[in-house]
Amino acid sequence: MADQDELRERRDAEEVALPDALSAHGVELDGALEARKQLEHAAAYLELHIEQGPVLESIDLPLGVVLGTFGVERHQVTFTGQAAHAGSTPMDKRRDALAGAAKLELEIREIAKRTGEGAVCTIGGVVTKPGIVTSVVEIAECMLDQRHLEATKLAEMLSNAEAASRRFAQEEDVEVAWDRIWNIEPILFDEVLIELADESIREIAGESHRLPSGPLHDAAEVARAGVPTVMLFVQSLRGLSHTKLEDTREEHLELAVQALDRLADRTIARVAAG
Amino acid sequence: MADQDELRERRDAEEVALPDALSAHGVELDGALEARKQLEHAAAYLELHIEQGPVLESIDLPLGVVLGTFGVERHQVTFTGQAAHAGSTPMDKRRDALAGAAKLELEIREIAKRTGEGAVCTIGGVVTKPGIVTSVVEIAECMLDQRHLEATKLAEMLSNAEAASRRFAQEEDVEVAWDRIWNIEPILFDEVLIELADESIREIAGESHRLPSGPLHDAAEVARAGVPTVMLFVQSLRGLSHTKLEDTREEHLELAVQALDRLADRTIARVAAG
Repeated sequence: MADQDELRERRDAEEVALPDALSAHGVELDGALEARKQLEHAAAYLELHIEQGPVLESIDLPLGVVLGTFGVERHQVTFTGQAAHAGSTPMDKRRDALAGAAKLELEIREIAKRTGEGAVCTIGGVVTKPGIVTSVVEIAECMLDQRHLEATKLAEMLSNAEAASRRFAQEEDVEVAWDRIWNIEPILFDEVLIELADESIREIAGESHRLPSGPLHDAAEVARAGVPTVMLFVQSLRGLSHTKLEDTREEHLELAVQALDRLADRTIARVAAG
Repeated sequence: MADQDELRERRDAEEVALPDALSAHGVELDGALEARKQLEHAAAYLELHIEQGPVLESIDLPLGVVLGTFGVERHQVTFTGQAAHAGSTPMDKRRDALAGAAKLELEIREIAKRTGEGAVCTIGGVVTKPGIVTSVVEIAECMLDQRHLEATKLAEMLSNAEAASRRFAQEEDVEVAWDRIWNIEPILFDEVLIELADESIREIAGESHRLPSGPLHDAAEVARAGVPTVMLFVQSLRGLSHTKLEDTREEHLELAVQALDRLADRTIARVAAG
């Protein structure tokens, strides 16, 4: 959690301070850390969620057990070249920042592939400046997101992307700078609960599948707080999320609720048995 | 010139109609075409301009003769894939519009190189949508500018870029659409005047150089109206234009004015001789 003094000074678009915005909704910032006490006697945390990805659909299974949430490294990678007239500057005299960004966009896919299954690297956006049709691009700001379930592989992907960006900057005679936007370590779920979840799914749906979660979830924060945690995923149609096309079959939702019920029974029995 | 009726309906940011904005500055739209009459007895048009490019500096010459202005093909090239969660969508299940744009950015440089000296292709900007770090890019809008002094080579560059973009769209399982923003044919300057300009520069600076102009100039419009036209270029420092760093040495400016004076004398003598 970020430092409370830093939080106290944050303001929204209407200039309302964070503590005031929270208390307008019945939450006191100064008491926030006490919320942890509610987890003191928690024996387990179980969460059911749509997959938001295409894995379960691609192997034709309704349900899966989540092994944990990916670690994330998020950076702004800025290439800086030289604005120059698009009509008068010969190709071999350009310092085109967009060329660096284009090479990085194509290379992060190779980095993810080399790292193996479960690795993802994404440039979610590029901002070009001056961004006019009559000028070579002087500045290309790329938003890079890299995720993996293993901390060492995530670190390797980051270091490979950094090295590649420096190579491209040299090739294109431009500069490159990296700024970390945010990062989080991979969070692994509880091994015992993963077993119970697997059994519950097999009972309801015949077959189970273990997979990591690329998106983050509330479960990750609870697991970080020390509560044994596991998640179930139910299939998403076409693997789509964060769009109006996001959907899940009704019969799969029914199976998912039944599997969660079995998992809750098994977990309670286990906790009761000590 | 665009159709007058179309011009009549254009409005600026303050909703002022073009004819009103013009007449506020003493220009009547309906009389605009009559301005051509002023050119009826024009025997020649001579223009001196900074190069706005690095060619003369790279060969260490102060002055050059312009052969004509490049033809320009300007298009918006839009790649459309599918937005998808950057954490949950495996690399091999993505339809990433930015990958199409990245491949096109790198390929237009090869197209220009293959076309030979004087060919330029530029992607001056890319707009990515949704443009957030947690999503694969669904839409990448590229502004493409291509220029050449020969109409057939310009057409060839355009057709090569179109074909390449379709190949990349297929490889990446995305769509591609082309919209022409604007184009203009190459405009060649007067051969006799080019000779006179060459002689004038040699007299003043010892050596001359013939080069095309990538940027457009007033001279191009006058040449299009049928007046024999030529331009002189004076060296730009570091080849830079459209930035505060744009500059030209004072001694080169002096040579340029002397050369223009000689060229005017030669042209007047030529016209007088019939």
